[in-house]
Amino acid sequence: MSAHSQITTPNLHVEAANGVTYRYRRFGTPNKSNLPLVLLVHYRANLDNWDPHFVDALAAEREVVLVDNAGVSGSTGSTPNSVQEMARDVLAFVDALRLRRYDLLGFSLGGFIAQEIALYRPWQVRRLVLAGTGPQGGVDMHLFIPKVLDIALADDPTPEALLTLFFEQSATSRAAGVEFIERLGLRTAERDEYADLTTRDAQLTAISTWGIPDETRLKRLAGIRIPTLVANGDNDIMVPTRNSYLLAEHIPNAALSIYPDSGHGFLFQYPVEFATEVNTFLGS
Amino acid sequence: MSAHSQITTPNLHVEAANGVTYRYRRFGTPNKSNLPLVLLVHYRANLDNWDPHFVDALAAEREVVLVDNAGVSGSTGSTPNSVQEMARDVLAFVDALRLRRYDLLGFSLGGFIAQEIALYRPWQVRRLVLAGTGPQGGVDMHLFIPKVLDIALADDPTPEALLTLFFEQSATSRAAGVEFIERLGLRTAERDEYADLTTRDAQLTAISTWGIPDETRLKRLAGIRIPTLVANGDNDIMVPTRNSYLLAEHIPNAALSIYPDSGHGFLFQYPVEFATEVNTFLGS
Repeated sequence: MSAHSQITTPNLHVEAANGVTYRYRRFGTPNKSNLPLVLLVHYRANLDNWDPHFVDALAAEREVVLVDNAGVSGSTGSTPNSVQEMARDVLAFVDALRLRRYDLLGFSLGGFIAQEIALYRPWQVRRLVLAGTGPQGGVDMHLFIPKVLDIALADDPTPEALLTLFFEQSATSRAAGVEFIERLGLRTAERDEYADLTTRDAQLTAISTWGIPDETRLKRLAGIRIPTLVANGDNDIMVPTRNSYLLAEHIPNAALSIYPDSGHGFLFQYPVEFATEVNTFLGS
Repeated sequence: MSAHSQITTPNLHVEAANGVTYRYRRFGTPNKSNLPLVLLVHYRANLDNWDPHFVDALAAEREVVLVDNAGVSGSTGSTPNSVQEMARDVLAFVDALRLRRYDLLGFSLGGFIAQEIALYRPWQVRRLVLAGTGPQGGVDMHLFIPKVLDIALADDPTPEALLTLFFEQSATSRAAGVEFIERLGLRTAERDEYADLTTRDAQLTAISTWGIPDETRLKRLAGIRIPTLVANGDNDIMVPTRNSYLLAEHIPNAALSIYPDSGHGFLFQYPVEFATEVNTFLGS
């Protein structure tokens, strides 16, 4: 296994103009014909929450950049209470890396942030991937359903919690979930810290604020003019799948891909298939 | 160019138990690990309305079977007024060919028929592709919008009518549409007859009857248990794209793929991309 792997690549650090020292990983295969792909992760997640199978399949064709946003896990600073501030924190990070142009993939909360970045700097993001996410003011995004909320708020989330939140109840989906959770343990050196409870509360505030029902917010999506790939599982109980439809309807140049027998964690249930779809979409 | 092409393959005929002599084409690459793919075409269409680029890309990996349904173009018999009767006519054809098990791709009206066949013979259809189509009782499927209806009803439809009905108004989509229309002329020998006005009126009656708003009909889709790929353009003005969402939501094991900058004719705007997606879905 070379350094071109999520399992072995070292943690890196960079101090940005906002005073935050960001922990990140950057690896893969740089290539003149493509751009680095910045990945923004989900609620309560750190660098180790990216499935090695998924990101390594991306890294086979491009550089990938994983990051702990301000206040999260191995980065300094504090986690803000709004998606908009989180987006500005990511911009401070990409500026610190001197990334002038890049592709962007956001999953869940990371997808909320990715939309804001695409709107703030339309000249900078080349292509956008929105996975398991939804638009500001979308449908049933304001408050998790009770069984999701209980798990999402727990002080000590278990790996098994991801099975319920990210996978379908079918045997096939749950079996894929068990394999995913095993893969999350493959990295043994330099593991990232868990996000703390302050981060949890700030992120959940940001998520609920983003989800206040307000269909007038959908019109902002017309401002995302770059090619966009929207994807989700067909039964996402965290960010309901209908929100992916809304994204694809309102973003002018969007493709939509819904995976069967899967939920919020479809990208980790179909890691090779979805990485192939993303690689094809981004080009090489 | 071998006989493995929509441009050169001969027209074939078979008489079925219902007394109808069906005109069809059967070509491609038979393969022990897959099954023939039966394709059901759109309103007023004949065998020559299948884009050679699209079906040849399918035929590179499997046998494809194109057919004029009863009463249409080069087949004898009369065109029935209901999707249900049309489905029974297709079953008479597959029985005449002694196809015991096959994959099925339906486009538009062909997709309505394909759903019925999958429900009538759940043991026979292995995998299902529903392109640019919608469920019985779906949304805005009862009556075409006026600009579509004018063109769809015209006694002498022009090739250019397809540009309006099948493609987006963008320069890229229209340019792809012009190329598609040119490809429809590539076959010179043994071209099929145009569908007549009796077929037009019967098919339009079947389409409108299928489209009577009735959300209770959506529950039938739970009976389609086979793996299904639902696909459309993001702005279909003939069978509005929301109906693809409904299909994917209600068919238990469905993947959904929406193509950007495209309409009803997305499969002919992206002939190689969509054929690749279908080939991947069907396996080889």
